[in-house]
Amino acid sequence: MSDPLRVTVWNEFRHERERDDVKAVYPDGIHAELARGLAAPDLKIRTATLDEPEHGLTEAVLDETDVLTWWGHMAHKEVKDEIVTRVQERVLAGMGLVVLHSGHEAKIFQRLMGTTCSLLWREAGERELLWNLAPHHPVTAGVGDCIDLPAAEMYGERFDIPEPESLLFVSWFAGGNVFRSGATWTRGNGRIVYFRPGHETYPMYRNPQILRVIGNAVRWTAPRAAAAVPKSKNDAPRIAIPGYEQPEKYRTEG
Amino acid sequence: MSDPLRVTVWNEFRHERERDDVKAVYPDGIHAELARGLAAPDLKIRTATLDEPEHGLTEAVLDETDVLTWWGHMAHKEVKDEIVTRVQERVLAGMGLVVLHSGHEAKIFQRLMGTTCSLLWREAGERELLWNLAPHHPVTAGVGDCIDLPAAEMYGERFDIPEPESLLFVSWFAGGNVFRSGATWTRGNGRIVYFRPGHETYPMYRNPQILRVIGNAVRWTAPRAAAAVPKSKNDAPRIAIPGYEQPEKYRTEG
Amino acid sequence: MSDPLRVTVWNEFRHERERDDVKAVYPDGIHAELARGLAAPDLKIRTATLDEPEHGLTEAVLDETDVLTWWGHMAHKEVKDEIVTRVQERVLAGMGLVVLHSGHEAKIFQRLMGTTCSLLWREAGERELLWNLAPHHPVTAGVGDCIDLPAAEMYGERFDIPEPESLLFVSWFAGGNVFRSGATWTRGNGRIVYFRPGHETYPMYRNPQILRVIGNAVRWTAPRAAAAVPKSKNDAPRIAIPGYEQPEKYRTEG
Amino acid sequence: MSDPLRVTVWNEFRHERERDDVKAVYPDGIHAELARGLAAPDLKIRTATLDEPEHGLTEAVLDETDVLTWWGHMAHKEVKDEIVTRVQERVLAGMGLVVLHSGHEAKIFQRLMGTTCSLLWREAGERELLWNLAPHHPVTAGVGDCIDLPAAEMYGERFDIPEPESLLFVSWFAGGNVFRSGATWTRGNGRIVYFRPGHETYPMYRNPQILRVIGNAVRWTAPRAAAAVPKSKNDAPRIAIPGYEQPEKYRTEG
Repeated sequence: MSDPLRVTVWNEFRHERERDDVKAVYPDGIHAELARGLAAPDLKIRTATLDEPEHGLTEAVLDETDVLTWWGHMAHKEVKDEIVTRVQERVLAGMGLVVLHSGHEAKIFQRLMGTTCSLLWREAGERELLWNLAPHHPVTAGVGDCIDLPAAEMYGERFDIPEPESLLFVSWFAGGNVFRSGATWTRGNGRIVYFRPGHETYPMYRNPQILRVIGNAVRWTAPRAAAAVPKSKNDAPRIAIPGYEQPEKYRTEG
Repeated sequence: MSDPLRVTVWNEFRHERERDDVKAVYPDGIHAELARGLAAPDLKIRTATLDEPEHGLTEAVLDETDVLTWWGHMAHKEVKDEIVTRVQERVLAGMGLVVLHSGHEAKIFQRLMGTTCSLLWREAGERELLWNLAPHHPVTAGVGDCIDLPAAEMYGERFDIPEPESLLFVSWFAGGNVFRSGATWTRGNGRIVYFRPGHETYPMYRNPQILRVIGNAVRWTAPRAAAAVPKSKNDAPRIAIPGYEQPEKYRTEG
Repeated sequence: MSDPLRVTVWNEFRHERERDDVKAVYPDGIHAELARGLAAPDLKIRTATLDEPEHGLTEAVLDETDVLTWWGHMAHKEVKDEIVTRVQERVLAGMGLVVLHSGHEAKIFQRLMGTTCSLLWREAGERELLWNLAPHHPVTAGVGDCIDLPAAEMYGERFDIPEPESLLFVSWFAGGNVFRSGATWTRGNGRIVYFRPGHETYPMYRNPQILRVIGNAVRWTAPRAAAAVPKSKNDAPRIAIPGYEQPEKYRTEG
Repeated sequence: MSDPLRVTVWNEFRHERERDDVKAVYPDGIHAELARGLAAPDLKIRTATLDEPEHGLTEAVLDETDVLTWWGHMAHKEVKDEIVTRVQERVLAGMGLVVLHSGHEAKIFQRLMGTTCSLLWREAGERELLWNLAPHHPVTAGVGDCIDLPAAEMYGERFDIPEPESLLFVSWFAGGNVFRSGATWTRGNGRIVYFRPGHETYPMYRNPQILRVIGNAVRWTAPRAAAAVPKSKNDAPRIAIPGYEQPEKYRTEG
């Protein structure tokens, strides 16, 4: 019925080229795996990576992007500030953003949250149970009460984020930690989802439940309207209320 | 009983030196007026301004600041990014921040909100009524149902901010606009209040009700604990859960 | 593509039968007018009114209701507590609820909010401007920055509601008041929208923008999943974590 | 300096009289233990129990209560609706409410939340770790990153509550569950804290960290002002905006 959503899957794509253990899991890169796993008739998916010109996020690409997914880890600092600003402006204008796993410390996520987004972590291949706290929410549709992951990297509280608008998942880890693994925020006209699972050596992005949540998140963060945020108050139109008589001694500037 | 709160009142201090109409209202600068108006036995107030070295916000000054109030307007862009980062880190570590009036577009406020913080505006000396939506909240204590300002600059929605944690005041303007004039957020360990009234040519900062709210905000945003946010996950301590046996094939990094 | 949403438009239907001035505006009742105004291929609309058996809200009717809209005013107290409980349980299980105008003091709304939902009011045919604070939200789609109503009953703050999850509209009234006219909450699996405009003698429910918002609200509150909330913890399944060894001295009850 | 806070510790007080294993832990009842544990110069504590006349919550007692703590379990249904309404009105007018453990299904908590407040549970004496998600919040002051309880009853998600305003603690249970163990809401002028730990056979109310949190919660929920909520819109004063001329054809009712 309607046009497909245009999704850009962004990936740092360094681990997969530099480390054999990662290459073994994601030979074509996490972005390629995600693009395959999310493939559906209602989605038109492209990928972009750090080492492409402008990190693959040119104005032209973003003009054709409804939702951006973000995976980064070792090279957060190499993402240019001007590209971060460009992406932020798109989110504020309505583009959806789905931040995955170690993307919690991506500049774009910190920019939109205003906090460090730091957390505790441990790489111990321990069991993770993601409890669904929001069974009514479109992003959790179809995954039931709990997602059971036999071996995962641990992320633990305190996760330094603003109080989420909706808290979707809380993870339990065998080693004793808990974590807000799925959460949503609105910034400007843009919807943002953070979703924890995913790591360069655990094959999370072939897990159907994980892919289901990411697919849900992509569809839910899609923009609702052709809205635009004025960049500064100087761009904002003045209001003229018919019938309102302005006191003579004041002029309306602008 | 307890030590006084250490408050730093920051002001851009340009309008007051450059325009005679502003000088007439605030001959010593908005910061001096605010410092006088807020003076109380439980507060130890100092001031800082844009054109001082490091904008008056050296590490030494911030070491002795529990709460920072911020007024800026024409020179937001002259505030150095490194000082903005320094202030942001302090807020995340627990310092209170009270953003006043045109400070809505200050870099520090945009940094913490993640949005443009843009709005509509009109300078027409029109009547403003601030309705108290949170009579239970410490920041509105003592001001009753409504603050009535006979002549004010108009700020209008849509104000591009994240959904406030507590919406304290909504303003009515004679010309037909409404505005979320008082609101709170938490970022890291820091509490943030935005409060609208105040302008370089309307003597808002001599109005006892306005000063009451700002004083309340200063006291409410004061840090609760000597908390510190880890700057990145690498600084975060690992968790050792007694009794948790880590699978042999994994090492605990760090 | 999908089955139409099943909407039940509930109305007290007393004013329209008892007062000639109301009958002149809504000769068939507010419910009939709303049903006509909301008519669309994706909605299957029925109506129900207070004086029908079980207020028209039998288990059978609710079994076939995805979203319920509620208009009441003079006879809130005549709504039987057992029917309120029945509707509440449906909302918690996922049914959408759209509360209109004077429905702010309906038992069902008070039940779900936990507060009095009281407000200020004045019947003075004054101008109302509804400012759109959430241009990104599906419920505000298509109405632009502002809805202009030349003559309306006034509702004013403080509106005694829990802090909304999304604040959609704030109204400006010519007489000096403001009001949170559109807001959303989640309770259990159910989405709730409150929308202010509408009155027994102002023909709000023939205004295309007002109908647009109500139609949006109906579609947005529709349940996302066939979810059910356990009525008490005794109905809740016990969790059996494979591999978890329960201390011998404790038995698992149930 | 200021008068002590007047705290009423309410307890069902049935388990302690009927079961020897409970009597062994709390010989004088949970209320007596809590009153002892919370004793401090700034608190004036009394107790009240279910089987007293009016459940010990007469108008006279509530007139002298700033904060009420609530523990109930097996006899929730015996609490009279009129007393629940009385307590609810007090909370809406500003009285603080601290709901403990199995009080999650107390009528008063359900009334204020609008939901079932149901959850999963298991009595298996398993380890619980309460992670502090809000180190900046007055209610968590002094307890550090984590409270470690060697043997506790399990409460698990999904906890059917409205999204908390501040999420304070998330619990980890050895058996694989997580739970939002500390959370806050505002209803009317009243602050509400839910805090999970506590059970009739685990001596939680002698644990200094648990008592610390409850004491913090009592102090934080204390009313800020002598505020009162109008019971219905008919009690609400009309607004007379000086200078506003009402259209002739409309009368201001009331």
